[in-house]
Amino acid sequence: MTDYPGSYASTGVFVCFEGGEGSGKSTQSRRLRESLEAEGFDVVLTFEPGDTPVGKEMRRIVLSPETGALSDRTEVLLYAADKAEHVDTVVQPALDRGAVVVTDRYVDSTLAYQGAGRTLPVSEVESVARWATRDLRPHLTVVLDLQPEQGLARFEERDRIEGESLEFHVRVREAFLAMAAADPDHYLVLDARAAVDDIAAAVLDRVRPLLGQASRR
Amino acid sequence: MTDYPGSYASTGVFVCFEGGEGSGKSTQSRRLRESLEAEGFDVVLTFEPGDTPVGKEMRRIVLSPETGALSDRTEVLLYAADKAEHVDTVVQPALDRGAVVVTDRYVDSTLAYQGAGRTLPVSEVESVARWATRDLRPHLTVVLDLQPEQGLARFEERDRIEGESLEFHVRVREAFLAMAAADPDHYLVLDARAAVDDIAAAVLDRVRPLLGQASRR
Repeated sequence: MTDYPGSYASTGVFVCFEGGEGSGKSTQSRRLRESLEAEGFDVVLTFEPGDTPVGKEMRRIVLSPETGALSDRTEVLLYAADKAEHVDTVVQPALDRGAVVVTDRYVDSTLAYQGAGRTLPVSEVESVARWATRDLRPHLTVVLDLQPEQGLARFEERDRIEGESLEFHVRVREAFLAMAAADPDHYLVLDARAAVDDIAAAVLDRVRPLLGQASRR
Repeated sequence: MTDYPGSYASTGVFVCFEGGEGSGKSTQSRRLRESLEAEGFDVVLTFEPGDTPVGKEMRRIVLSPETGALSDRTEVLLYAADKAEHVDTVVQPALDRGAVVVTDRYVDSTLAYQGAGRTLPVSEVESVARWATRDLRPHLTVVLDLQPEQGLARFEERDRIEGESLEFHVRVREAFLAMAAADPDHYLVLDARAAVDDIAAAVLDRVRPLLGQASRR
């Protein structure tokens, strides 16, 4: 498989929120969109898995309790197919026109959940996900960090992924923190227990210097 | 991505039928099963894409005219996910118990249709498919060779794949023949216009020496 060098879009701004269940990613994604739209920027809010017609089908297959145990490789490849469709039909076209793309989960979620949490070598999982996305990387990934006990307590009903053991979610958290530590120029780690307004302000501070290559509506 | 050496099961016998649309793969697959079952062998007849619950869903997504244009990478990854599930839940368990597994299409179809027919580098498509299947290879692949004009004429209604241009199907045929020419120990090319009984007899002749590692019911 071709080794892609990590590539960053030369137009538009690509921001990703990552973190465990209940860490506030969707709240903070919306807050960032609201702030940037108020300043006139063209913002596209999106998510993985499932923000394409094909992705919705795959999300249904992977997350349904009826699906039962999928082969590890099957699961990795379904998530990768979702990513390929998401990048090619949503993310890249928006970046090409200069938009700010804000995504709730991206490649790091695959690496953290499928790689660290499962039994396949992380390097193989990463190769598949990088190929799927042509190794397009976010200019900034915000990790909303939370101890798994605190995040999971927010859910009463858990789907197939969220029904994993606490140890699984501990490994997921450690994976996110390790990725952030290895590439501080492209990561921002924030304590998800902080006030929503404080987190939103910290994110906006870090995004603002990137906006030079974004277009306004 | 790890480079797997091609691997061949040490128990059971893995036979694959490949060829274009209308070349008689399903007829010959059934004939081989009938002959071997009559001799007491444990035979599993299967197919790609779609012979698992997850595979059925993916086949529906990829082949439906409603899906429209999928990203090239999405299509490759969906077929690969189908293969991973097929190998892990159908093919490998049957080989492990010593069965003869007869499959209608396998990795070569992905290489021929997605690689030769589309725009992605064949080496990348192959890496994904090999990873999905842990590079498990058939002991014998039978290519039922037919000029595309003759195969396609048998269908009145064509699905999304079959609706491709004649040139596409010519490239698919050339891809199958090239794979067979490169590895004659593991391929048998037969003229699909020959009599059904003659083809069935030629297949059985070539399969018979492999049956030493197969078990009877």
